Amino acid sequence: MEFAGPVATLSMDVQEDETLADGYKLKLNSYDLGVDIELADAVQRIRFEHPEVRAVVVTSLKPRIFCAGANIYMLGSSSHAFKVNFCKFTNETRCAIEDDSSHSGRRYIAALNGTASGGGYELAIACDEIYLVDDGNSAVSLPEVPLLGVLPGTGGLTRLVDKRKVRRDRADVFSTLAEGLKGKRAKEWGLIDGYFPTSKFQDSIDARVKQLVNAAPPAEGIKLPPLEFETTDDSRNYKYVKLKLNRDQRYADLTVHAPEGPQPTTAEQIHELGAAYWPLQAYRELDNALLHLRVNEPLIGLVCLRTEGDAETVLSIDQTLAANHDHWLVREIILHMARVLRRLDLTAKSFFAIVEPGSCFAGNLLELLLASDRSYMLKDSEEGDASLAVSELNQGAFPMSNGLTRMQSRFLAEPEKLDEVFGDKKTFDTEEAEEFGLITFAPDDLDWEDEIRVAIEERTSLSPDALTGMEASLRFAGPETMDTKIYGRLTAWQNWIFQRPNAVGPEGALTNYGKPTQAHFDYKRT
Amino acid sequence: MEFAGPVATLSMDVQEDETLADGYKLKLNSYDLGVDIELADAVQRIRFEHPEVRAVVVTSLKPRIFCAGANIYMLGSSSHAFKVNFCKFTNETRCAIEDDSSHSGRRYIAALNGTASGGGYELAIACDEIYLVDDGNSAVSLPEVPLLGVLPGTGGLTRLVDKRKVRRDRADVFSTLAEGLKGKRAKEWGLIDGYFPTSKFQDSIDARVKQLVNAAPPAEGIKLPPLEFETTDDSRNYKYVKLKLNRDQRYADLTVHAPEGPQPTTAEQIHELGAAYWPLQAYRELDNALLHLRVNEPLIGLVCLRTEGDAETVLSIDQTLAANHDHWLVREIILHMARVLRRLDLTAKSFFAIVEPGSCFAGNLLELLLASDRSYMLKDSEEGDASLAVSELNQGAFPMSNGLTRMQSRFLAEPEKLDEVFGDKKTFDTEEAEEFGLITFAPDDLDWEDEIRVAIEERTSLSPDALTGMEASLRFAGPETMDTKIYGRLTAWQNWIFQRPNAVGPEGALTNYGKPTQAHFDYKRT
Repeated sequence: MEFAGPVATLSMDVQEDETLADGYKLKLNSYDLGVDIELADAVQRIRFEHPEVRAVVVTSLKPRIFCAGANIYMLGSSSHAFKVNFCKFTNETRCAIEDDSSHSGRRYIAALNGTASGGGYELAIACDEIYLVDDGNSAVSLPEVPLLGVLPGTGGLTRLVDKRKVRRDRADVFSTLAEGLKGKRAKEWGLIDGYFPTSKFQDSIDARVKQLVNAAPPAEGIKLPPLEFETTDDSRNYKYVKLKLNRDQRYADLTVHAPEGPQPTTAEQIHELGAAYWPLQAYRELDNALLHLRVNEPLIGLVCLRTEGDAETVLSIDQTLAANHDHWLVREIILHMARVLRRLDLTAKSFFAIVEPGSCFAGNLLELLLASDRSYMLKDSEEGDASLAVSELNQGAFPMSNGLTRMQSRFLAEPEKLDEVFGDKKTFDTEEAEEFGLITFAPDDLDWEDEIRVAIEERTSLSPDALTGMEASLRFAGPETMDTKIYGRLTAWQNWIFQRPNAVGPEGALTNYGKPTQAHFDYKRT
Repeated sequence: MEFAGPVATLSMDVQEDETLADGYKLKLNSYDLGVDIELADAVQRIRFEHPEVRAVVVTSLKPRIFCAGANIYMLGSSSHAFKVNFCKFTNETRCAIEDDSSHSGRRYIAALNGTASGGGYELAIACDEIYLVDDGNSAVSLPEVPLLGVLPGTGGLTRLVDKRKVRRDRADVFSTLAEGLKGKRAKEWGLIDGYFPTSKFQDSIDARVKQLVNAAPPAEGIKLPPLEFETTDDSRNYKYVKLKLNRDQRYADLTVHAPEGPQPTTAEQIHELGAAYWPLQAYRELDNALLHLRVNEPLIGLVCLRTEGDAETVLSIDQTLAANHDHWLVREIILHMARVLRRLDLTAKSFFAIVEPGSCFAGNLLELLLASDRSYMLKDSEEGDASLAVSELNQGAFPMSNGLTRMQSRFLAEPEKLDEVFGDKKTFDTEEAEEFGLITFAPDDLDWEDEIRVAIEERTSLSPDALTGMEASLRFAGPETMDTKIYGRLTAWQNWIFQRPNAVGPEGALTNYGKPTQAHFDYKRT
């Protein structure tokens, strides 16, 4: 990454041997999960550490190749579950680029100084503009279907027809053409925005970037230090987020703690605190915990979401965030919280919210409850009352992938309830929460332990695959967006193909790619 | 089926032994493909043969059971491909019920005089209103996830949260509760519209139906006779539709012929001609051919769509249909054509439109070209010019599942093109079709044979699974509807689950249902 005032240049130069696992080399700027984690981190760092950047040029340091996409040998040697998780994470990274573009106004320019194939073109198509070198050789392509018998798994097909609105017959031709298309036709078909000869490529990119970038007011970024946490065999504890793994019962308790003590109230104080500011640190920790659960804890099928601490503190933080939302750092913090919550929506685990006295499902933390598949709230406890509370941030700051707030999704049938919930009343005890429809169940002291225990046992006894498909279908009612299409339709089809013998069987295309053996298909259409 | 003036009663009384295949009995009004074909036929017949019907009561003749859904033993013993095709067809039947309700105003009342489980409840939820008997026993349920480790495969999950807008946490509880919910709570959660004690059930249904049905003007239906066709090993020829199977190359030619001679111009003449009227007969034949290809010809991966005859005749038919669209029969004929074209969109085969001199891709038949994955049109032929033509019906009569016309879907990037295409110019020769963006490729006489041959060879050499996923992703750009969610998201997830060992492996839930052996899951979450 290079920074020159308002322009950042993100150059791919993947080192062949720096792989996350053995058995493959990252040739031709192909990537594995390790590379994509770096990419996600780079985009995050631009947003927090370099707010002065207004345009990001994504390019390559390798000659004649921009990026060859996900490494085929890595995919070929990975388990089904890993492939699925890998694609989900790379999708989230591409969506984070688009989130930056949409909400923070940073322009992403894909400067394809060589061929962009498969995931390489999918990275380009996540950018705002795509320019290809016209060297008689370089092309854009999606060779997954013709070469590998799988789909472009990182949103490519959806973005072709929905973002770039490429005509579907042309998209069909392009997606079945292993060698792809070069400058002139690629431009004509809408796959790229322009092409320049080699000798003028860099100047043309520079000129375009200059057009896009207005002199931005200088702003000083904050540092994002690595997260600190302690682990044992059955726990992973950050400062604010505690993860407890109940391995025998295949569920985890994930508890988010509210901060203690006085909190900053101005943008300047927030800036000074930087990454240590609770909404940023706690949500970075939550994000990390979710990714850890996804990739490293496949046997954990259910996560019980809990909160602890003073709800008033959480609400006052929301108030501060809302009051300062036009400050760049506050905006980035809120957008980051929204992305983490969407990561939760898209995680293939069941989520139950558990609300007890001493919890603080308030404002931004109420989203955890609203994101859950169900919620249990203790009624008539001897330890005092449990309560929920809403804040201004529940009304639009944290949209789901479908574009709605979680409260809108919840009350799709009764939109008038939104006015009630966001009326004068800000806090809801168990009976009120039940009456307003904010929770699923409200067992009392006598039943509480048993009911939670049985619910956990029942949930973790069900088919994990059926639950994944069910949750993906129930969590996103209402409107659809490009994001929900990518995570719902495209991902589901890709997952299907990722288990088909034609892709991953001994004679499958993915298995046999690059080997002397040839793929042989069962040509029956399903 | 019973008819009493404006009310039809469709009673399920599935005969245990009348199965489509061996190895299972259709107990408890469970169904197989044969039963669903009957149901689809019944709905079709109501529309064409009984236009006087304004309300359809769907109920059961079996005591204490409405319908137990798709037969589990049938599913358990079916191939993956059959399960996928079966679910697609049952989905199309449910959507046809909703199409009748939306566009022809017929009210469908599910009178659940006993338990409706799984596909039984999914049939109910496709109706406009659902009433359940309150006998202390009868319930509605979706037990697929808890009992079978698969999803409700006929739109149930999507309709729960999108049609009935059931709160997602309640939908989660309901979809994991094998025994389902009875009257009171089912009503409270929005799963049904009402419940009545056994003694008052029939009267209450009758009363509700009476409220819904206004005295409709009497109308005389037409008869839908069985379709006639001749088959050989490699052909299936109807009157207007000819299917030629090129088995060695795994593709088919499907040709629709325009009618000859004078065509009716008034609604009365159309009514007199009835099912023999070309737009009805040709599209019934096309529908039948598509279903035959889906279920019985899995090795055919590509269908070349061709037309033959006089384009002027086709256009004049469109003119007649448009001019008489408020006559009930003409409306039903147009809606039927639209459903057949949507069936084509949803068929898991590749479609190429082949346009040569003598073809008639005009008006309604132009939709075949617009529905194709790509199109080839001969340029500069010695045999004369090929041409395309638009009619008024291309502007809204045949919406895709996404709610757009195929022309709107095509020009998503350039909506202004719609004005050009539907301007004064009605007919487009090859050069014009290319210029207006109506076709994909326009090879000339010299290249024609070779280019088509190579395109066919290339297409049929690709992974059939990757093509299915790719086409499902590229065909439906733009907005989403409940239908596209059902066919895109829900179906793709179900297909995924339908191959997972947790469902269909030796220890899977579907495999072991009803056996003394127990399912054992691999609990890793994916």
